[in-house]
Order: sequence, then C-alpha cells, then structure tokens
Amino acid sequence: MSRIPAHAERVFKGVIFDVYQWEQEMFDGSTETFEGLKRPNTVLVIPMIGDKVYYSLQEQPAHKPFLSLFGGRGDEGEEPIETAKRELLEESGLESDDWYELRKYSIPGKFEWDVYYYVARNCRKTSEQNLDSGEKIEIREADLDSFLSEIVADPSFRELSFKSEVFSVFNPDVVAKLRDEMLG
Amino acid sequence: MSRIPAHAERVFKGVIFDVYQWEQEMFDGSTETFEGLKRPNTVLVIPMIGDKVYYSLQEQPAHKPFLSLFGGRGDEGEEPIETAKRELLEESGLESDDWYELRKYSIPGKFEWDVYYYVARNCRKTSEQNLDSGEKIEIREADLDSFLSEIVADPSFRELSFKSEVFSVFNPDVVAKLRDEMLG
Repeated sequence: MSRIPAHAERVFKGVIFDVYQWEQEMFDGSTETFEGLKRPNTVLVIPMIGDKVYYSLQEQPAHKPFLSLFGGRGDEGEEPIETAKRELLEESGLESDDWYELRKYSIPGKFEWDVYYYVARNCRKTSEQNLDSGEKIEIREADLDSFLSEIVADPSFRELSFKSEVFSVFNPDVVAKLRDEMLG
Repeated sequence: MSRIPAHAERVFKGVIFDVYQWEQEMFDGSTETFEGLKRPNTVLVIPMIGDKVYYSLQEQPAHKPFLSLFGGRGDEGEEPIETAKRELLEESGLESDDWYELRKYSIPGKFEWDVYYYVARNCRKTSEQNLDSGEKIEIREADLDSFLSEIVADPSFRELSFKSEVFSVFNPDVVAKLRDEMLG
C-alpha cells in the first residue's frame, strides 16, 4: 500500500530521503498536513554455489562491524534486479545467470521503502571485489542450514525483516517473563 | 547508539521528520555527505486493571483499521512518561498512579527514533475519550494471557518490535520452505 498520495508535494530532496507533504482530510471534514518519506529501494542478495551461501562481515564508517547480505541502494530509475547484479559483482566479484526474487518487504509506517531479497544460484567468481571508500566487506561462507539458523540468528545480523520471518514462533519463556513484569 | 553526530546540520525541519546531514570521513580519508533522520519519540501504553488489558481498534485517515496500543508522538521537550499519561487519558479516559517502563526500542537504521512501552497498572476511568479529528479509537479488553498470545499475534497488530519479541523462536516450517525456495 502506498501511503503517500499522488498529489503530495515533495518539500525536501535529500541524499537518501525525500520528504513529501499533503493536506489530508480528517474524519470531521477538516484538513491537516501529513508527512511521509520516500527513499530508494534496498536490494539484498544471497549468492549460492550448490548449497553454500555467501554473506558478509561489514564495516562502515561510524558503525560497529555487522553480519549482512551483499547489496545496497537502488540508483534512480534502476530496476531492483539490476541493483542486485551490480551490488553483488561490486561487493563479492560473483555473477549468476539464475536469479530468484525470494521476498519483497514493504517497510511499514510513514515510508515508501521496499526491501528486495534475491537468491543468486550457481554463482561463479568473475572478478575481484570493487569496493567504494565507505565499505569494508569480508566475504564469508556457510552451508544453507547453518546460514538459516546460526547466521540469521546472530545479534549483529542486519536484515531484521528476514530474521523475523525465520524466528516467528511464540516464545513462552519471553512471554512468561513479560507477564511477570507487566503484573509487577 | 546515536547515529547522527553532534556537529550534523539540520537541513530540513518537517511536521514529523527533521533531516540532518554531515561530512563523514571514509576509510581512505575522503569525505562523503551522510544523511539521517530524527523524529519524535513514539510512546505506547498498555493499561491494566488487575490482569485485564485494554487495547484499541483504530482507524486513521488513509489507513485500514488496525489493532494497536494507546499512545502517540511526544511533543517537543515532553518526557516520555508525560506523553504516556497524556495519550492514555485522551484516547481511553484512563489514569494510573502505578506506571512501569516495560521496554525502550531504538529503531535501527538511519534514524534517531525511540519507541517506549509503558504499563499503566491499576487504572481507573476518570473521563471520556477526547479524540482529535484524525482518530477513531474503539477500546477493547482481553485478559493478559490472551493479549500476549492472540492479540499480539493478529496480523493487523501494529507494534512490530513488541511482536518480534513475543514471536522469537526459530520456525522450522518457515525455514524448510525458505530452504526449498532458495535451492530452487
């Protein structure tokens, strides 16, 4: 669902974030100024060779190191699959002819922000990493089962939409503790 | 962790979102313009009378109806607990003298945005709802166990940080399906 109507006005254009405002009719017929944000797609790639999965240990300026997938922001007018191919090649030197769109999450709230997850099967190494000055990316590997259990579970694993899909069963221990806390 | 340094410049002041930019030193000594957002605290309240929990079915302009907690955005300079008391009274007519800060989540990414959860125990009804023109709020109740299992599990339940804490056990069915999808 798009939360920013077509007639909204762009009131700020940033490096990443554009801010939109529009007059929204309220339940009593009055209007108020509503505000929303647009930002480029985030595109994430899980490259595989057989059942081996490649992921990354990344450092970025002003962040602690974290586990992540390869990927990045879409350029203006760039299709998500093109972002996926470009970012995978830059960050890992891998290419694939067998791409699969695994998920598309739309971030809730006052945003237009889509996050795409692709699987790149049967990858081959065609070049070296070609990182920009704001990236330090160490390539790591795991078999698929370890990736889906251990790596995704790591506290520093960055991709929270994916994590919350994998870890989505009711947790009775957490709830028992919450219950005691709430009753006091 | 604050992701926006103290020397960042506010380049846009919005109704909700303020945009900040700063020059960030890269790993090679060059600099790039980084961008981040600040927005007011979100404050959410779980009012209780004994082990009964009150929550809401809400409608807002341009949204589908959803299940939620009482609460809203902090005003400038307002402490989170004051936002909690103000929003609870406006939206439910309830007051409490027994407040407990249950959680504080800091939203990850390029934001400074904190979400507070309070429990208001031993509530008493002191007035009617006093809603603004952008709110339709139906007050609902559940016992605490049903709230933590059924209500939080509802697909329309809005508070995702809380939901992901309650539903946080590895889901073998989801993972088996993901595994098949990824292998193709």
